[in-house]
Amino acid sequence: MKIAPSDIRKFFNPKSIAFIGVSRSAAKFGGLSFMKKFQEAGFSGRLYPVNPKAKEVLGFKVWPDLEALPEIPDLAVVSVSAAYVPDVLEACGRVGLRHVHIFTSGFGETGTREGINLEKRLAGICRDHGIQLIGPNCMGPYCPASRLTAWGAIPGLPGPLGIISQSGGMTQRLTEYTASLGLGVSKAVSFGNGTVLDALDWLESFGEDESLRVIGMYLERLPDGRRFLETARRIGRRKPVILLMGGETGAGARTAASHTGAMGGNAVLFRAAAAQANVVQVENLDEWVDALLAFSLLPRPLSEDLFLIGGGGGNSVIYGDTCVRQGLSVPPLSKGTMSRLREMVPTAGSIAGNPLDLWTTYTDTDCVGELIDLAEADTAVSMIVVDRLIPRMAYHMPTADTTPQMIERLKGRAGKKPILFVVDSEGGDSELAARGAAIRAALGAAGYPPYPSIYRAARALARLCRYHRRLSNGDV
Amino acid sequence: MKIAPSDIRKFFNPKSIAFIGVSRSAAKFGGLSFMKKFQEAGFSGRLYPVNPKAKEVLGFKVWPDLEALPEIPDLAVVSVSAAYVPDVLEACGRVGLRHVHIFTSGFGETGTREGINLEKRLAGICRDHGIQLIGPNCMGPYCPASRLTAWGAIPGLPGPLGIISQSGGMTQRLTEYTASLGLGVSKAVSFGNGTVLDALDWLESFGEDESLRVIGMYLERLPDGRRFLETARRIGRRKPVILLMGGETGAGARTAASHTGAMGGNAVLFRAAAAQANVVQVENLDEWVDALLAFSLLPRPLSEDLFLIGGGGGNSVIYGDTCVRQGLSVPPLSKGTMSRLREMVPTAGSIAGNPLDLWTTYTDTDCVGELIDLAEADTAVSMIVVDRLIPRMAYHMPTADTTPQMIERLKGRAGKKPILFVVDSEGGDSELAARGAAIRAALGAAGYPPYPSIYRAARALARLCRYHRRLSNGDV
Repeated sequence: MKIAPSDIRKFFNPKSIAFIGVSRSAAKFGGLSFMKKFQEAGFSGRLYPVNPKAKEVLGFKVWPDLEALPEIPDLAVVSVSAAYVPDVLEACGRVGLRHVHIFTSGFGETGTREGINLEKRLAGICRDHGIQLIGPNCMGPYCPASRLTAWGAIPGLPGPLGIISQSGGMTQRLTEYTASLGLGVSKAVSFGNGTVLDALDWLESFGEDESLRVIGMYLERLPDGRRFLETARRIGRRKPVILLMGGETGAGARTAASHTGAMGGNAVLFRAAAAQANVVQVENLDEWVDALLAFSLLPRPLSEDLFLIGGGGGNSVIYGDTCVRQGLSVPPLSKGTMSRLREMVPTAGSIAGNPLDLWTTYTDTDCVGELIDLAEADTAVSMIVVDRLIPRMAYHMPTADTTPQMIERLKGRAGKKPILFVVDSEGGDSELAARGAAIRAALGAAGYPPYPSIYRAARALARLCRYHRRLSNGDV
Repeated sequence: MKIAPSDIRKFFNPKSIAFIGVSRSAAKFGGLSFMKKFQEAGFSGRLYPVNPKAKEVLGFKVWPDLEALPEIPDLAVVSVSAAYVPDVLEACGRVGLRHVHIFTSGFGETGTREGINLEKRLAGICRDHGIQLIGPNCMGPYCPASRLTAWGAIPGLPGPLGIISQSGGMTQRLTEYTASLGLGVSKAVSFGNGTVLDALDWLESFGEDESLRVIGMYLERLPDGRRFLETARRIGRRKPVILLMGGETGAGARTAASHTGAMGGNAVLFRAAAAQANVVQVENLDEWVDALLAFSLLPRPLSEDLFLIGGGGGNSVIYGDTCVRQGLSVPPLSKGTMSRLREMVPTAGSIAGNPLDLWTTYTDTDCVGELIDLAEADTAVSMIVVDRLIPRMAYHMPTADTTPQMIERLKGRAGKKPILFVVDSEGGDSELAARGAAIRAALGAAGYPPYPSIYRAARALARLCRYHRRLSNGDV
């Protein structure tokens, strides 16, 4: 089904919303909690709680039914029990309400004949009335520009990401996760069972949406794998599609079936086809975020060759190994760079080379700045990874954090090579963990992807390189 | 070279230490900083700083040379410049000092003829005088029971681990890392270039040391791969050997050569042989710690089948996929367990099964306790993984942490299946990061391995299962 720009407006920027199924107590998750979150976020549209048994909730007049409303709301959020949902949907159809989000679960995903039939009835009613449906069994639309942020990081950070997801939980986690690193989501849709509007519809729509530069997807079902990959390939030429596919294994698929009624296909075949289509496939939430950061914030790398700036001998060895295992290259630097490095780096206890083992880099911002300038000018490398070691017990170092100066210093740089940071705060106390999170947040907010480990950084970079290499080779 | 129990005593529990090369200012890392750390940690032996130009440092009388000392110290820590080290070593030999740690770098690892020859001279002097040498280019011995904790988490936590490492930095990081999770290191040795005592010598020695239950190694060079693996196989039958091998790739090996003078071999062949010998090979610091936690704290799993306790549909799907990808199994539960689960788990919004998707588990300790009891009694599963979701914005949940009650509840359990926790605090603010670290620390201190992600938990568990399966199959 085609999602038109007018549908997008009604879903993501509604002027009015009806909440059908609003409990009188705030204890239950559902219509009332959605309303409350919209209200808290400063949503400026009109809110119409509907409940025949209540008079007022959250200071709003409660309406007995849709017919009683003073207007046809742009959007309805339905959270009555599953058995009543068909009636509510019929009522929407009768009053001419054409955009509905069903929060309620208990349909096909239960695996019962009753649930499956109930979901079929929903599809039929939507077809009869031309209703554009999000759900059932989902968290619905999310759009911080409209303060439509019933879930996710509140008040919501707009940004380059568009998220299409069958799981409300995963989308909420992702939205909070990227926001904590300064990367915003301008539109997200948690669409659950996808009874009417499915993954393909949303991909088409977000693909055309010029406000979105990178698309993240969490799927448990592909209604039409071939068409999906064709669409993803086409859209992916302009806009990377980062896909987290749930239910690839037996155990995952069994749960996916109970979660959104999805049936897993052949994961190996799909993977190969997805790679062909230049869809960037990831395996978990961390990898999803890591890739979204790299694809949103970094320019195109001209090759897989990177310069690793850090300190510590064993550390450098493992960092180098990790990058190479991910398919990246840590090549020898050019003669000019090396001769300058030999001036900068002491012979004992440090190693002039790539990786660079130079403890000074952790405290001396100007030193890192010069190294970055050297790397920008060195044709042997196309990317720059800076390890920001956190002062910790094991390092016998002063505790001042030079991140603000580092960010200031980078503002003046002329180069255009991808540059990213590793800030590893594992294995200390709570204070160290907090400091690491704060440094990563500051770097992310400044536009530099920050990773908590070289493994995760290298994995994301390798995906970025592969994507651009296939594009520039004309393979897609 | 054989390390005798008397050597171990002199290295790890010396009654007296001479520091040769003690600067008068604390600014430089070296002899003085070692002395200062020993002093701070409460080392009870006698300390003899040696420096012909000083009278007193840190309140200690400074001695002009070794001959002037009132006794032959058990151990010498040498940190004079590389060129002077042979003379110092000769002096040690002359006075009968037989246990030496050389901190100084600038030998074979520089790649220069001069450095290589200098290192050969050290080997010759040690041979002539029967000196047992740790180093050069390393941090030396570590033993918290003796307050010999010049590096690593201070004051040092004794425990089941023995660490053998060519990198001082990696060993310090590891020691701090495991200590932060309540897991102690009773003996560690950073042996750098391993000119006299090498990886094999230390493995033999730690293998026989009854105070050590698990051995962690970081190596950049194997002097004799075949003998090493034979020894590791033999020791590994009683005591798991967890190996982080640096320099497996071209970039890593190039750095390893400059770091400790090591030359990488064929990584693929070595990996296969190491797996045959039941050596547990890991790829980075996080994996090293993750495996050490599992091998130190968990009993033998009887199969790869685990029960995943957590909440969230998408989460459960991905958790299941992640475990299966690592070679574990997340099988259907037995009938008895399922019938009880169906009573406990609501139909809508949760999933009774394996993985279990039940939000209550995050707040209700008794519920988790009962689930663990069910799993202990269910022959379909051999391991239990509990996801401790942290209350965060995305989850609209109360913020009380139930970890203390959880730990209390577990004290009463009768079962013996491995049980471990996932506490994922990624993607929030600093406070969330701090809380996650604190919860992991509390669980670790209570003896339950805590992991920051299901990926890392599953990877460690898979290694534990493989190790025990090979043992019980009689494959090693």
